[in-house]
Amino acid sequence: MARLNEHYGKLAAGYLFPEIGRRVAAYQKDHPDARIIKLGIGDVVLPLAPAVCDAMRSAVDEMGTEAGFHGYGPEQGYDFLREAIAKHDFAACGVDVSASEIFVSDGSKCDSGNVTEIFAADARVAVPDPVYPVYVDTNVMAGRTGTVDARGRYAGLLYLEGNASNGFCPEPPKEAVDVAYLCFPNNPTGAVASRAQLEAWVAWARKTGAILLFDAAYEAYISDPAIPHSIYEIAGARECAIEFRSFSKTAGFTGIRCAYVVVPDALEGKLGDKTVQVRNLWNRRHTTKFNGVSYPVQRAAEAVFTERGRREIRERIDYYMANAKIIREGLTKLGLDVFGGVNAPYVWVKTPKGIDSWGFFDRLLDGAKVVGTPGAGFGACGEGYLRLSAFGKRDNVEEAVRRIGTTL
Amino acid sequence: MARLNEHYGKLAAGYLFPEIGRRVAAYQKDHPDARIIKLGIGDVVLPLAPAVCDAMRSAVDEMGTEAGFHGYGPEQGYDFLREAIAKHDFAACGVDVSASEIFVSDGSKCDSGNVTEIFAADARVAVPDPVYPVYVDTNVMAGRTGTVDARGRYAGLLYLEGNASNGFCPEPPKEAVDVAYLCFPNNPTGAVASRAQLEAWVAWARKTGAILLFDAAYEAYISDPAIPHSIYEIAGARECAIEFRSFSKTAGFTGIRCAYVVVPDALEGKLGDKTVQVRNLWNRRHTTKFNGVSYPVQRAAEAVFTERGRREIRERIDYYMANAKIIREGLTKLGLDVFGGVNAPYVWVKTPKGIDSWGFFDRLLDGAKVVGTPGAGFGACGEGYLRLSAFGKRDNVEEAVRRIGTTL
Repeated sequence: MARLNEHYGKLAAGYLFPEIGRRVAAYQKDHPDARIIKLGIGDVVLPLAPAVCDAMRSAVDEMGTEAGFHGYGPEQGYDFLREAIAKHDFAACGVDVSASEIFVSDGSKCDSGNVTEIFAADARVAVPDPVYPVYVDTNVMAGRTGTVDARGRYAGLLYLEGNASNGFCPEPPKEAVDVAYLCFPNNPTGAVASRAQLEAWVAWARKTGAILLFDAAYEAYISDPAIPHSIYEIAGARECAIEFRSFSKTAGFTGIRCAYVVVPDALEGKLGDKTVQVRNLWNRRHTTKFNGVSYPVQRAAEAVFTERGRREIRERIDYYMANAKIIREGLTKLGLDVFGGVNAPYVWVKTPKGIDSWGFFDRLLDGAKVVGTPGAGFGACGEGYLRLSAFGKRDNVEEAVRRIGTTL
Repeated sequence: MARLNEHYGKLAAGYLFPEIGRRVAAYQKDHPDARIIKLGIGDVVLPLAPAVCDAMRSAVDEMGTEAGFHGYGPEQGYDFLREAIAKHDFAACGVDVSASEIFVSDGSKCDSGNVTEIFAADARVAVPDPVYPVYVDTNVMAGRTGTVDARGRYAGLLYLEGNASNGFCPEPPKEAVDVAYLCFPNNPTGAVASRAQLEAWVAWARKTGAILLFDAAYEAYISDPAIPHSIYEIAGARECAIEFRSFSKTAGFTGIRCAYVVVPDALEGKLGDKTVQVRNLWNRRHTTKFNGVSYPVQRAAEAVFTERGRREIRERIDYYMANAKIIREGLTKLGLDVFGGVNAPYVWVKTPKGIDSWGFFDRLLDGAKVVGTPGAGFGACGEGYLRLSAFGKRDNVEEAVRRIGTTL
């Protein structure tokens, strides 16, 4: 019988969100009349921006004509999109990233999972705790860990602990690693890293030779002008960091699928005893195992950067951030300890005394018919917290806060 | 300095198609007036079917409304598409595949690369020669091979030799492997496997415990009613095979991106000393490292199965197969030995005596301004052949055959 990847046997449990989906479905089945409000999965709810729809429709029209048909495109993305990204997401902020360093993809989940492939099989990996589970699970599948313990921690990974006392922004570790994941604005805690904190991470990475995997999927939600949007705003980051960006949360593309990775030319690593550009490995991986993003989707993403697109996107982000404020202030009034929700669309709620994450999840589901995401699902340090997403319709968010008030 | 995946250092050269692209670009630069006809990369050229465009536009319209907006969908694909596939691609042919066994993705290149992840790190792998390079390169990257030899063969892989005497349909090997790739109708040779030949492969796989990775991306081009379209037409295949299908060549989706994998419930493998369903591993991989196909793309794929969609798609396939006939008959008249082009959109041409694959490629580029794909790029057994694709405009195909006639 064919031998399968034994490392899959180490995975602790189902991926977090399907597990939540199963519990909610079971509850709804038993309570068919319950009007459940979902603030669990961080999924946008507002319609796609008209500028984006128009661009996508035009691209479909083109595809229906002899002259406008597009077959395989460049795996890395069309120049029109890579150049728009370089101009608006980087040059406009004074950041040096060229179009050729940008690799367009169908999602940051894919990118942050796939990037693990270009590192050594036994690469030492540091992950935040709490953490977006994909960072951990994909390294488990790749065989970079031992077994899992009772707290859900895998032997072999270095955990960077985030907690209320460090503002959920861990310091660089004492020991050297090959790869360290960072996510700011943070999923799930909503925390941001200051310029000084990011400078410390870049200095550490350059000193120890680590590569930072910087997930900036939520950068559009930063409201504080002092907070960097890109790791490349920090001097020296081009020599030590890969950045992940997504149109999912920025422009409501969760159902449209477009994202990108930046791998700077200056980033190097060791291939055996040779020093090589990391970009070359990623390019090889990307061209061999991926065939480019749908042409109409790339045209839709390009439209995000037009003046009209930017205005429409901004309205949507402002809407969600007003939701975040309602959640944050509402729950604070109820006496709960809350974090995040200022520069990020997530509010990170301390569970009431004596209740664990899944207990609070179940209590809110049963009592308030509100779905959150149990902090424990994001790691041992997430125990005792629950994540609420600001991606909801306004009346649902207001109703959720009211119902939580009557449930506590 | 961070340690990278050393196996990338074993990869013999750039991926085949970018290399061809570089040569063609260099030639065009030196000969700016040359009207080059590209029959190299197997990329469709006809406009997207109107039924497909209409469905995609409607889905974009939906996405612009509150009620019709779709965020994250099921990673495995929407039920509407999985059920349409099960009904039209399988049940209609009397084949037992259920919707839950179908995993919708953004391309067969991705799928056939990603599937390597669910097998043991030291899985023994058999690949055809000549072969679609992705099967080989992704296993090299995964560390399942040693170094490459002068013929482009990697130590550790078992090569299944295809040649004129076995009709480019190799027999099952004597030795046992964990995984064996098969592709019928074949890329690059255009060969098909008869029912008896597929029965022999299934019998062998069941006896030795191998899993067949059956790439059926070109099944829509089969014209001979005796040739199976799916490996699951063979009794017992549900216990030993994964099948890959794509909308790329079937429905002109190379720039739209949609494909799927079938992993039957009955397919099992060894996870350490446990016997497990392969489907569970693939589901875990798919939900952890992929986030579903764009909603408008899935609606476009669904439209392929409507009566109108099927009629429009059939017209396009017939058009390309008429091209194949022109190439096949034209080159035969010129005295060349040709294979394929009857049940597949590829014509596999023996190079004239004394010329190797890249030599013939260069001669056709320089003499006829026609781009083919050098057979040697598909493996050692492809040396001495050139692949011509039937995916071209009619007048280009006719002109290409004429020009080749004056060049030989």
